[in-house]
Amino acid sequence: MSAGAMFDIPFAGGTTDRADHMRGDPRAMAEAMAGDALLLCLDGLNPIVEGGRLAWDRLESAARGDVEVVFLGLREGRACFAPVPASGSLSPGSGRLWPAVAALSADELALYGAARSLVNWHARHRFCAACGYPTALAKGGWQRDCTGEACRAQHFPRVDPVTIMLVQHEDMLLLGRQPRFPAGSYSALAGFVEPGESIEEAVAREVLEEVGIRVRDVSYIVSQPWPFPSSLMIGCLAHADHSELTIDRTELEDARWFTRGEVAEAFAAAIRGERDREFSLPGHQAIAHHLIGWWLDRA
Amino acid sequence: MSAGAMFDIPFAGGTTDRADHMRGDPRAMAEAMAGDALLLCLDGLNPIVEGGRLAWDRLESAARGDVEVVFLGLREGRACFAPVPASGSLSPGSGRLWPAVAALSADELALYGAARSLVNWHARHRFCAACGYPTALAKGGWQRDCTGEACRAQHFPRVDPVTIMLVQHEDMLLLGRQPRFPAGSYSALAGFVEPGESIEEAVAREVLEEVGIRVRDVSYIVSQPWPFPSSLMIGCLAHADHSELTIDRTELEDARWFTRGEVAEAFAAAIRGERDREFSLPGHQAIAHHLIGWWLDRA
Repeated sequence: MSAGAMFDIPFAGGTTDRADHMRGDPRAMAEAMAGDALLLCLDGLNPIVEGGRLAWDRLESAARGDVEVVFLGLREGRACFAPVPASGSLSPGSGRLWPAVAALSADELALYGAARSLVNWHARHRFCAACGYPTALAKGGWQRDCTGEACRAQHFPRVDPVTIMLVQHEDMLLLGRQPRFPAGSYSALAGFVEPGESIEEAVAREVLEEVGIRVRDVSYIVSQPWPFPSSLMIGCLAHADHSELTIDRTELEDARWFTRGEVAEAFAAAIRGERDREFSLPGHQAIAHHLIGWWLDRA
Repeated sequence: MSAGAMFDIPFAGGTTDRADHMRGDPRAMAEAMAGDALLLCLDGLNPIVEGGRLAWDRLESAARGDVEVVFLGLREGRACFAPVPASGSLSPGSGRLWPAVAALSADELALYGAARSLVNWHARHRFCAACGYPTALAKGGWQRDCTGEACRAQHFPRVDPVTIMLVQHEDMLLLGRQPRFPAGSYSALAGFVEPGESIEEAVAREVLEEVGIRVRDVSYIVSQPWPFPSSLMIGCLAHADHSELTIDRTELEDARWFTRGEVAEAFAAAIRGERDREFSLPGHQAIAHHLIGWWLDRA
């Protein structure tokens, strides 16, 4: 399966050259910052979008004193950075996030997502988890180093793998809803991969925990970087041999089997942007939308 | 593709019931610890293996005072824990690790891997990365909470996704070697997934960075939890349209194309345990071994 060609996944599809070889080269980083470098404009963790595009400042005029900046990479040969907000000014993402990012190209959305994950990680990792001393940004923002002389631990930006899975039984799809979802909204079950398990095992454990079903034949479909705060969503398909659900009500408010016809109708409504339905599905931004579309397209 | 059925991957295949529902229930955790619970015997981060099996103590007699313990789950109904070593006693894994774990069943190896990742994470996360205050173990060891009243940040065990990829051109396979590898030893290219990229994009970026080749048609094969310290190895296949290599010598000592015949011969030698060859391949413990075996088995 050639995942790249089959899907158009939001937050993936960036064209920025991450220029990994520059990060660890202090002279290259200094030259990049001294040139015509750009600094991404952020409102807390949210982007500032003007005319459907990300807003930028010149780095030399915008970065003040001891503000830390993260090297995002090169765009058309120009070095791009993002500022690390002071811990106190971290906003969790206001209601204005989605309308703003909906206007962005796939490439700019991917760049923003990477920047958001990185600056959030920096803002929340100003201290060494091993010893409690302050940390300092290193390697263009792709590392933080403990400043404690006895420790000097190195820390790296976090990416948390999450499995998200369609569960199929005969021609029906299992979907669930968390209490925080809008009324009527259902999506694919999901959960973090834990230490000591493979992707396939994480899928099986989550489904068993949440709805009491043992699945077989777990297969990978497609993945998505999800910057809230920094997940790697790993989309899978799994098969159930029975349909009897034992729902863990501490995790899920409801879970149900939906027929192909029901799913197709709700999916079409989601594409039209209709949310206020008895059964609604996630919109374009979520990988679940693309997994469900893929399932509907199969013979 | 049903990955679980096709592969026998070391560190996966655990049968321990992780009993997620007990972790957040203080009464259930207290009862589990008061009963006939077991405590895994560790030498630093290494296991103590006796007669080909993991060694255990009774929790009540072994856990002293303020030693933190992590709830691994239930085995045959019995609660199993692992002790968090004091930071100073963390050993990086001595030369005795591999002979010791080679004797373990797949199930015990998986349990040890999960325990090793978890206790290592705890030992290195005794302080809050957000504010520098001490943290305390929570939810049976599946969380640490900041003790700072103004912070109270919650922290979760880390799992770092890593892509590891076979790159194919015509009937040849691209393999590389890092300077730290034993002489003559080659393996699949690999690298951490970064914030803001999908699995497929991480594969393409790593191959481009390390050997200067743009790949197409990235597909997923199988995954492996790798407890050094806590990676999720995501095995993929990618295709190259040309064979010209531009090797990044800061990352790789060498990279070469090998014919199917060369790979088959070295793979057979790896199964026989022969390492002292001009061209040798990883042994059974590494996912690369299983990816290469899969590639050889294909028509």
